[in-house]
Amino acid sequence: MPLDNLSAEAEATLTVDRDVAEHVSRTLADYLRGRVQECAELDPAISEAAEAVSEFVLRGGKRLRPTFAWWGWRAAGQGDRGEEVASMLHAASALELIQTCALIHDDLIDRSDTRRGSPTVHVRFAGTHRDNGYAGDPERFGLAAAVLLGDLALSWADDMLHSAGLARRALARGLEPWRAMRTEVLAGQYLDMLGQARADDSPETALRIDELKSASYTVERPLQFGALIGGAEADTVSTLRRFGSDIGVAFQLRDDLLGVFGDPEVTGKPAGDDLREGKRTVLVAEGMLRAGRRHDEAASRLLNSALGDPELTRSRVELVQEALTRLGAVDAVERRIDDLTESAMSALHSGELADPAATRLEELAVTVTDRNR
Amino acid sequence: MPLDNLSAEAEATLTVDRDVAEHVSRTLADYLRGRVQECAELDPAISEAAEAVSEFVLRGGKRLRPTFAWWGWRAAGQGDRGEEVASMLHAASALELIQTCALIHDDLIDRSDTRRGSPTVHVRFAGTHRDNGYAGDPERFGLAAAVLLGDLALSWADDMLHSAGLARRALARGLEPWRAMRTEVLAGQYLDMLGQARADDSPETALRIDELKSASYTVERPLQFGALIGGAEADTVSTLRRFGSDIGVAFQLRDDLLGVFGDPEVTGKPAGDDLREGKRTVLVAEGMLRAGRRHDEAASRLLNSALGDPELTRSRVELVQEALTRLGAVDAVERRIDDLTESAMSALHSGELADPAATRLEELAVTVTDRNR
Repeated sequence: MPLDNLSAEAEATLTVDRDVAEHVSRTLADYLRGRVQECAELDPAISEAAEAVSEFVLRGGKRLRPTFAWWGWRAAGQGDRGEEVASMLHAASALELIQTCALIHDDLIDRSDTRRGSPTVHVRFAGTHRDNGYAGDPERFGLAAAVLLGDLALSWADDMLHSAGLARRALARGLEPWRAMRTEVLAGQYLDMLGQARADDSPETALRIDELKSASYTVERPLQFGALIGGAEADTVSTLRRFGSDIGVAFQLRDDLLGVFGDPEVTGKPAGDDLREGKRTVLVAEGMLRAGRRHDEAASRLLNSALGDPELTRSRVELVQEALTRLGAVDAVERRIDDLTESAMSALHSGELADPAATRLEELAVTVTDRNR
Repeated sequence: MPLDNLSAEAEATLTVDRDVAEHVSRTLADYLRGRVQECAELDPAISEAAEAVSEFVLRGGKRLRPTFAWWGWRAAGQGDRGEEVASMLHAASALELIQTCALIHDDLIDRSDTRRGSPTVHVRFAGTHRDNGYAGDPERFGLAAAVLLGDLALSWADDMLHSAGLARRALARGLEPWRAMRTEVLAGQYLDMLGQARADDSPETALRIDELKSASYTVERPLQFGALIGGAEADTVSTLRRFGSDIGVAFQLRDDLLGVFGDPEVTGKPAGDDLREGKRTVLVAEGMLRAGRRHDEAASRLLNSALGDPELTRSRVELVQEALTRLGAVDAVERRIDDLTESAMSALHSGELADPAATRLEELAVTVTDRNR
């Protein structure tokens, strides 16, 4: 729902609960306006760079991490109105800037061309270089811009958290998951690149990467972050973390399926891009394991040759889809998603969380693991 | 002076003032030990990555930024013993982790092979890839490692500041320069890459980059950071900032001279590496401007062709050295260093700073701008 068209009166009665993502986007827009302005004062050329970061952040994204942080705060029994709400929204929105850095740098590492239907940062700046006939190599220029702009976003993430105006103790409690999640996402990315280099195609490694990059960083830690800032009891935090850990892995498994089977119209990426990028997902690992066990050498060869082939054609993507389905890898991943979702729901219900948090987290769990996501 | 050999008694009486850099190194070693341990618990493979960051930090460096922060704190009238000293050292040392990120990412962007006499991070990891016969492109692996490890250092910088145990108000005062300097260094690096791409060879642009990347980030902001944490009066902060801004630019100009004329034994980099990397320093900009004014086309051609030539030979570096000297660019930069140093000293003396801070800052100013540095 676009909130911009609401009258001031209607807006005043609108609570954050009604549209967390929209409130996060607005909070980010406000914050980034100030940072871009500050950069413009340093130098007009720098404001272009700052604007590129701002545009990237504001162009879209599901605001998943801030949303989970918000519901962690609400599950702690905090309200969705009043003075502290603005501070909490500000702190939660800072998570999106960590993610901005992660995406800009990941796209560079993975050599991805598009993100959210637009050129990735390194591609965009390589284009600027070409369009202006700059000196040197456009790709090196794109690389430099992506490295620096990702760093800028990561710096701003911390700045945004620490300017949120949280009470001292609330902030101190939130710093532990904040600290952990930034190390964990980088650790996950590192394991990911190492796994690719070592051609480690075990489902165990793929799952460990999912736990670090997705479960912990995307769901569990944001929930813990919001809950601790909100002063939640230890039991509540533990319930949320168990829920978050399971849903986070399920979310990533769904993402893996979409990365091979997804509709480009929905995902914003060409079908099979995960294969071209050589991502050793649990889905692919399951396929390889099963092909090996069945001595299905044609399937093994197909998977191995498709993985990491930047020129992979649409028709070969379809062959991989068929093979993964035939080998039972798709069913295995779907079953795992179901099991994790069930276990997450049972953790959620055992915790007797205050509504509406429990209901909304249940809805979120369904949304992020839904096959038509 | 290596402190490790001191008896516990001797050590207990040793004040930070006597060797700030050594105290910073020890503080960093302590902190990083904990972070590496934490990563080892996530996954053994990740602890290798964390150790690479730790080794990079502990391998050397002059600890300039923490040292300036320390003397800002002392100039504020704070002591060099007592409980708060440990917190201040911890906070000051965090500056070194920002610098770690800046160096790892800069080396990647500039395609530098060595740093502090060892392979740079991307080169080291590309080597690991080759040595282990990993799949894929070793250079891409090196790039990914350098991006992620730099990000890790930047995240840890913030974590280290916020775990320093500073009093709430002291921390709040320090956050303003902390915030500003992280944006400024990235802005400076961005202007730098843009200047190279636009072949902008004006001394003004080169000076603006020096102001952001060196003066502000290396000297002025660290001094301000330490002084504000120490609760300095506005006058003291202003004196320190004027001093820092001048000395910071002078320091960079000295660095530019060393980058073309420096002894590899001292700088740890091959002579003329700044030329190979295409750095449009004030020195080079002055040379080009003078060559243009004198219609010295041979010199213009020499400078233009040398700049950014990765294969530049030792004998052509010597030709550039001769040209820059003959054109008067070297003298002009030396004069500017003298003027800035004089103006910095006069700012320092006008401020009536408490000793030993004033004396030690004067010594530091001489050290960082010295031609035999």
